[in-house]
Amino acid sequence: MKDNGKVTIYDISKRLNVSAATVSRALNNNPKISSKTRELVFTTAKEMNYKQNRLAQALKSGKSKNVGVIVPYINRNFFSSIIRGIEEELGPHGYHVIICQTHEQMDTEMEQINTLLNTQVDGIFMSISKSTTNIDHFTKVLQEGKFLIFFDRKLDVPGVSSVVIDDFKAGYMSTAHLISQGCKRIAHFSGDLNLEIYKNRHDGYISALENHGLKPDPRYIFTTLSNVESGAAAARKMWELKEKPDAVFSASDYTALGAVQELKKQGVRIPEDFCISGFSNEPFTQYMELPMSSIDQTPLRMGQIAAQVFLEQVDSDQELSIEKKVVLSPELMVRKSSNRSLAELKVQ
Amino acid sequence: MKDNGKVTIYDISKRLNVSAATVSRALNNNPKISSKTRELVFTTAKEMNYKQNRLAQALKSGKSKNVGVIVPYINRNFFSSIIRGIEEELGPHGYHVIICQTHEQMDTEMEQINTLLNTQVDGIFMSISKSTTNIDHFTKVLQEGKFLIFFDRKLDVPGVSSVVIDDFKAGYMSTAHLISQGCKRIAHFSGDLNLEIYKNRHDGYISALENHGLKPDPRYIFTTLSNVESGAAAARKMWELKEKPDAVFSASDYTALGAVQELKKQGVRIPEDFCISGFSNEPFTQYMELPMSSIDQTPLRMGQIAAQVFLEQVDSDQELSIEKKVVLSPELMVRKSSNRSLAELKVQ
Repeated sequence: MKDNGKVTIYDISKRLNVSAATVSRALNNNPKISSKTRELVFTTAKEMNYKQNRLAQALKSGKSKNVGVIVPYINRNFFSSIIRGIEEELGPHGYHVIICQTHEQMDTEMEQINTLLNTQVDGIFMSISKSTTNIDHFTKVLQEGKFLIFFDRKLDVPGVSSVVIDDFKAGYMSTAHLISQGCKRIAHFSGDLNLEIYKNRHDGYISALENHGLKPDPRYIFTTLSNVESGAAAARKMWELKEKPDAVFSASDYTALGAVQELKKQGVRIPEDFCISGFSNEPFTQYMELPMSSIDQTPLRMGQIAAQVFLEQVDSDQELSIEKKVVLSPELMVRKSSNRSLAELKVQ
Repeated sequence: MKDNGKVTIYDISKRLNVSAATVSRALNNNPKISSKTRELVFTTAKEMNYKQNRLAQALKSGKSKNVGVIVPYINRNFFSSIIRGIEEELGPHGYHVIICQTHEQMDTEMEQINTLLNTQVDGIFMSISKSTTNIDHFTKVLQEGKFLIFFDRKLDVPGVSSVVIDDFKAGYMSTAHLISQGCKRIAHFSGDLNLEIYKNRHDGYISALENHGLKPDPRYIFTTLSNVESGAAAARKMWELKEKPDAVFSASDYTALGAVQELKKQGVRIPEDFCISGFSNEPFTQYMELPMSSIDQTPLRMGQIAAQVFLEQVDSDQELSIEKKVVLSPELMVRKSSNRSLAELKVQ
């Protein structure tokens, strides 16, 4: 790339025969520099067509009015809605939002944090990747004096605020709903149970079964990845069981979609013979041949609240150790895939 | 935010009683500084726990190994797949990708370009917003010595490379396909015709009609926004016509989805009475009750090629005026919404 011949503070300092530090301080209106010198520097800078770099300013003032958002995938409606919520809330305050995705890789996550710190963001909002086990890159953010706020997926890191949904409640609600439809052998398609969100959904499922006098059966719990293929594979395995389940609470809409496709191939009638409930309320759940019940995690609100927590912290003059933990309530969207009253209406 | 007490080059210059410029040059291995001084600066910097900021380095070298991507919406599969293509191609070359969205607002687009330039990206990949009429913010990118590459939606700006799809061909293919299904009164749901991509899709539609001896009818062309509501509204208007169309080629999957929903409400049988073809091959088109025909724009490939064009330019020592225009070929995905042979098979 060719040198674009930009005027630097060194060029100004040479012209005026003062130090670069003096020029820099003068341009930043540092009162240590006499007003006469400041004026001289400003006039010369203007003459030489010097443009002060907003970033260079940020390097000094420590405020860039940029924030970073790191998500596993930008193309999940859940994450993109959270980002929209953050943008809507911060935009009027003059903040710009820059986004990175990790594709669920901890290495990438660490690099993205470095990238954002190097671009001098004032804070980072993030949902950790499934493979993240280490917290050093999070403490680094705090050490650099930047704010860090987790949403949805988090680890416990002192000094870090978080906005999450009540995943236990969501698992409980979904399972209790399936029970209310007459289902008695309810399977669970779980995510990686080392991740807090999936653990909580699982625990809510277990708790609902027990509170309704149903005995949890470990053969009915399938660990899946959040994609269609993994859901189809789990459904195939599930259908090989001697005593087949009559419902599944899936911790992912994509896995649930895979199950719907697989079970329909096998001639299973949904919801008559088998009820399915997913998680995240991805838009496709409404458009499916068989609209699918799901949990709405109110992502727009989650983003707005995360942004509000950030603004509170930025505006306060206190130390960085403020911690705020917000837990939102999930909403169950009942659709045809688990609504037997609808199925009966159709029969009549 | 509290001062995190970071050591700066000014602190080092004070300690060594040399100018900040000397410290900076020494840290950047500038050969103008004697090796003795360089060694002294390095040792002192290490002693004082000075950490050279990657960004501050970037300010000097002009290379940050970050690139920016600006899209109208991150949550459209088309755009997120392009971003993934860029990441896949640039990752192995040590580049980090940061993403911004404009929500189709030119003001936001201008701000995002400033934000990215201020974070010292080496180049910007972008698809312009629907409301963009001005090109000053694009020429600014070039003036700052950064690369600019348009994908999909572009304006003609000298010095800017672009990777687009052959939208004329896509419009032609879609319309010719509908004609092959026996449709004779084919409507078109168009986007804003001031935008090149929508103009080309429209022109391909017109050309296919004419080449097949069908007369284009302006009453059959509806300008829509790319969302479900706008598609439903256009379908309602279309269905009020005395001589109703028997097919629609929609320039957007979302608009086509709105039409499917509206026409089904009105009791229209698809594809028997009416054929529909969309645009972008959004994932939901496969999962719909009635899988929808669409145009695949090979977005992953579009992103990869855009990234390759960038790498070629970065690696070349030539001036910035290299311009490369790549036009990719679309793929028509025929599904049930416009496939009458499938419908007939079902009847048998």
